[in-house]
Amino acid sequence: MTAGTSVEQSAGTVAVVGTGLIGTSVALALRDTGRRVLLVDRDAGRVALAVDLGAGECWDGAEPVWHTVLAVPPAAVAGELRRLQDRELSATYSDVASVKVAPQWAAEAAGADLTTFCGGHPVAGRERGGPAAARHDLFVGRPWVLTPGSSTGGPARAAAAEVARACGATVVEMSPVEHDRALGLVSHVPQLVASLLAARLADAPELAVSLAGQGLRDTTRIAASDPRLWAEVVDANAGPVLEVLEAYAADLDDLLAALRSGAGEGRGAGPVGGLTPEAVADVVRRGNAGRARLPGKHGVPSGEFATVPVVVEDAPGRLARLFADADAAGVNIEDVGIEHAPGRPVGVAELAVQPDGVDRLLAVLRARGWAVHVPAPAVERMR
Amino acid sequence: MTAGTSVEQSAGTVAVVGTGLIGTSVALALRDTGRRVLLVDRDAGRVALAVDLGAGECWDGAEPVWHTVLAVPPAAVAGELRRLQDRELSATYSDVASVKVAPQWAAEAAGADLTTFCGGHPVAGRERGGPAAARHDLFVGRPWVLTPGSSTGGPARAAAAEVARACGATVVEMSPVEHDRALGLVSHVPQLVASLLAARLADAPELAVSLAGQGLRDTTRIAASDPRLWAEVVDANAGPVLEVLEAYAADLDDLLAALRSGAGEGRGAGPVGGLTPEAVADVVRRGNAGRARLPGKHGVPSGEFATVPVVVEDAPGRLARLFADADAAGVNIEDVGIEHAPGRPVGVAELAVQPDGVDRLLAVLRARGWAVHVPAPAVERMR
Repeated sequence: MTAGTSVEQSAGTVAVVGTGLIGTSVALALRDTGRRVLLVDRDAGRVALAVDLGAGECWDGAEPVWHTVLAVPPAAVAGELRRLQDRELSATYSDVASVKVAPQWAAEAAGADLTTFCGGHPVAGRERGGPAAARHDLFVGRPWVLTPGSSTGGPARAAAAEVARACGATVVEMSPVEHDRALGLVSHVPQLVASLLAARLADAPELAVSLAGQGLRDTTRIAASDPRLWAEVVDANAGPVLEVLEAYAADLDDLLAALRSGAGEGRGAGPVGGLTPEAVADVVRRGNAGRARLPGKHGVPSGEFATVPVVVEDAPGRLARLFADADAAGVNIEDVGIEHAPGRPVGVAELAVQPDGVDRLLAVLRARGWAVHVPAPAVERMR
Repeated sequence: MTAGTSVEQSAGTVAVVGTGLIGTSVALALRDTGRRVLLVDRDAGRVALAVDLGAGECWDGAEPVWHTVLAVPPAAVAGELRRLQDRELSATYSDVASVKVAPQWAAEAAGADLTTFCGGHPVAGRERGGPAAARHDLFVGRPWVLTPGSSTGGPARAAAAEVARACGATVVEMSPVEHDRALGLVSHVPQLVASLLAARLADAPELAVSLAGQGLRDTTRIAASDPRLWAEVVDANAGPVLEVLEAYAADLDDLLAALRSGAGEGRGAGPVGGLTPEAVADVVRRGNAGRARLPGKHGVPSGEFATVPVVVEDAPGRLARLFADADAAGVNIEDVGIEHAPGRPVGVAELAVQPDGVDRLLAVLRARGWAVHVPAPAVERMR
């Protein structure tokens, strides 16, 4: 069915099926926009917690709604869609599953009406699940991928986009295939890599584990994720995951070969040279390049710019004066990073500028009394 | 030489050779304790920046000192040690290299006096290098491994430990071999794994990279590290790194085999079952176990305890009342986690308790008006 009379009367009301992390977060965000939200979950405890958190009211399963968000696991999307369509409870539907090809196929196979369905995936999450972990701002500034099929109608597409925007997300349209390949790369393979790494710690000596620091904590944070959820996601996206993971394994094999050639030589105290250090440097360098492409602030100016470190006292107006003085040099500041530990009297402002502007900037800043020390290029620093 | 007269006169003064991230951070921490610190670096810009940051004074290379911290790359430790010992400039020495076997061997091979040298490694760092990134509190609460050799004398050992404690670190003693195996596991292999993962992004489609979220950002944070520094570290510790990385690769191969068996079957929309999901769930589960062993707060109660989520209004005294009421139930709260988004009227306090105390706690809390909803076990929630 498409929209019946009773459905149009309740335009604006959104039903959320499944009150886990994503469903409850969508509901909280929609409630913040003043929308009526109805909640349902097979688990009465979960839905009661979501209601108490202010995510909406219990759906009696009889009241028709304008749009339904299917926030259930990927394998459950098709069945829920078909079930609700049979009962003519909602004008349009979308889902939030983190794989898109498999649910789309399954919905078709289940004989669902695809004109009222628009696939979606808010690309946000936490390593924790459940309504207690839900956040009203989970999707703010995050991409929300819509994957409309060829039969998806205008109202379904518009409703899915409206829900995404109401949650503060940025709508991106992709084909289901494009989506699944992208997520394999940026989400599913990273999960497996982090889990495999953390698994090495399971039987490690206590003393070794006690030396772990923030680096390992960050690298394995997502390893705390739900095994069954990920089993389903990866199984549903096995092809794209396999493609990325094979390439990763090939790089790893090359590195292992280089390490084998270097191990046992008792080297390491001599100057850097030979197969192992070259292979390692190459891997880390390519990692630098990949890492630099990630969206979001990394706190450090980088790339093609030169970095000029300026010692700045922790006093009012110092940074403003620095920028005014840099401006007087006629050099454009492309980016700035501040290194300053709490309670310290001085910090370092790192100004990223075009390389050809460095000398002029140094001259002007030094003339105006700033302490500027440009270290030698990194490659010369290492002996 | 051991301590000569001139050396004893300057007891307490510490020289730091190498004003990179670690050296400058050690110097800043020592300065905070009121100690005199002398700095030297082959790079005049680096040492000038460290001086301006308050890390100490320039070392003229003539004034004798009580202790010298060699904060140079692993391959440079032996040479610097020998050079300074020849000039009789310091009573004792330690280093901060992140590998310990190779520098120890090299020092012996270089004919250094090992009685005045105690190997050390403050297990702390950042993905950034250089004096600008230095922090006076970099080592607070972190382990500082000392690896005295059989010939290391009491004064060298005591001085190295004093420096570590002055930096706020916790002294741990290990053999150089134990240390290198542990660091291979918790630091060197994680670095390579993160770099290999980030390298997959280097040539990926822009749209795919734009979908990356906090999970991938965390997993690859250390991939921004210095290629040459890591080339040297891994080369110097190739044996232990190889051992861990081979085990990691074997796990990866098993997972790849399972994925190959599952890919192309067009499954994923049916119930979970078969080789792929079982293999994935197993990897993630073992990752959970490894991750749970890491020191430090993870913010979430876990392990053998049951978790009881209680809805808590954001009002003064509510948490105190909750704890008093739980106390009245006679149930010991093993751990607590708070889920509360800024500006929201309600949050969730998650109380970790012994499983046999859940029913009593629920009864008492509900009788006293708390909203408590215990979701069904995770395994039942997933369909």
